[in-house]
Amino acid sequence: MLAMNDAEILQRLSDLSIELPDPPKAVAAYVPVRIAGDVAYVAGQVPVVDGKVLAPGRLGDPDSGPTAEEAAVAAQQAALQVLAALREALGGSFERLAGISQVTVFLATAPDFVEHPQVANGASQLLVDVLGEEGRHARAAVGMASLPLGASVEVAVVASLNS
Amino acid sequence: MLAMNDAEILQRLSDLSIELPDPPKAVAAYVPVRIAGDVAYVAGQVPVVDGKVLAPGRLGDPDSGPTAEEAAVAAQQAALQVLAALREALGGSFERLAGISQVTVFLATAPDFVEHPQVANGASQLLVDVLGEEGRHARAAVGMASLPLGASVEVAVVASLNS
Amino acid sequence: MLAMNDAEILQRLSDLSIELPDPPKAVAAYVPVRIAGDVAYVAGQVPVVDGKVLAPGRLGDPDSGPTAEEAAVAAQQAALQVLAALREALGGSFERLAGISQVTVFLATAPDFVEHPQVANGASQLLVDVLGEEGRHARAAVGMASLPLGASVEVAVVASLNS
Repeated sequence: MLAMNDAEILQRLSDLSIELPDPPKAVAAYVPVRIAGDVAYVAGQVPVVDGKVLAPGRLGDPDSGPTAEEAAVAAQQAALQVLAALREALGGSFERLAGISQVTVFLATAPDFVEHPQVANGASQLLVDVLGEEGRHARAAVGMASLPLGASVEVAVVASLNS
Repeated sequence: MLAMNDAEILQRLSDLSIELPDPPKAVAAYVPVRIAGDVAYVAGQVPVVDGKVLAPGRLGDPDSGPTAEEAAVAAQQAALQVLAALREALGGSFERLAGISQVTVFLATAPDFVEHPQVANGASQLLVDVLGEEGRHARAAVGMASLPLGASVEVAVVASLNS
Repeated sequence: MLAMNDAEILQRLSDLSIELPDPPKAVAAYVPVRIAGDVAYVAGQVPVVDGKVLAPGRLGDPDSGPTAEEAAVAAQQAALQVLAALREALGGSFERLAGISQVTVFLATAPDFVEHPQVANGASQLLVDVLGEEGRHARAAVGMASLPLGASVEVAVVASLNS
């Protein structure tokens, strides 16, 4: 596969007026990204901006939950954190990244919620907008009973690397 | 690993009186199958027949939910869609498929539901019946708060390929 | 990557006064571990001791649920079962194991539960304590509506192997 062009990806982010967040830090017993051979496993990202969870609550809960539109923005933010984590783990450049293989979008939802695709598209579209065709992935979007920090969205990714 | 024999697999499906469904289509930002090296990641499949979700509702919910038996049939259908997606992505033949590595069976359930294995076996058994020993996989079966389209079952798969 | 030293890992377990449980058995249609190339996929492990589920129930449910501390011990047990399954699948030695790539910790929870990290650390810390730096992994911890056998914890793992 062709190598990604780091400068081009940064330019695309800039064109989209999107800023790559600071990469998530390693915590006690696990790491944001684990590389094994040509595969990079990215830890589940809960969308956080300025130390606060974006669009917390339970989707489909009229009292306290965010709307699908708000959660889609949060999913996009989680995907950005995935990209920031990957770039950091690859030595500060997207050069070695070959593509996004698998995206699992976990959504905290009420039992009758059905707009999983609309929310998950916030993450999927960001990956394609920024990485182009190689950002296109297999996806599962599923509804959870709860998520860490009371988030409505968590995004986990498997990416492929060039040797 | 030995290559799979496409004609033999189609014959086995025919012997089981099972028809391979049309492969799922790519949607906007994600794809049914992403191949990276010798690994194929298959997007989460919700069982759909003639445009309608099979066995919708929440397992363990006496009012509206399907029985475990009905959901097991839906899980089998989802696994068939996985096979159809893989065959399409591999150029219309199972020849390059080496085996099924990982199956995650997501089930929409009430909190006290415990028949996850019975339902998930619908998917697991189909994969072994059709692909033989190389269809045997590691599995996780878990209960969700909700699934896309109000489905009771969603099946995501990682498969291995020959070079 | 360097090979793991089986005797050293067993010594470390002994130093921690931890006993490796019997490896989980293959059931009907799926297997505890599926190896594909240099990747080992481990089936979701529900913590079981002497035939009984450890810390069953729903986290965050004041009536029937275990505490986060109890569930963290259960998560550690599930991680031990993962190690037992891997060692068995690798011919009775950790020698070929290169590291732990991805850990998904599924927790059965009430909707307002937020202590996922504390519980999941039970699994993550065990893997690092026993395997050292190569046990450090990408992790997702998520809250489920229900789990098999009424468990509060299920742990699924992807590991990497030496050729």
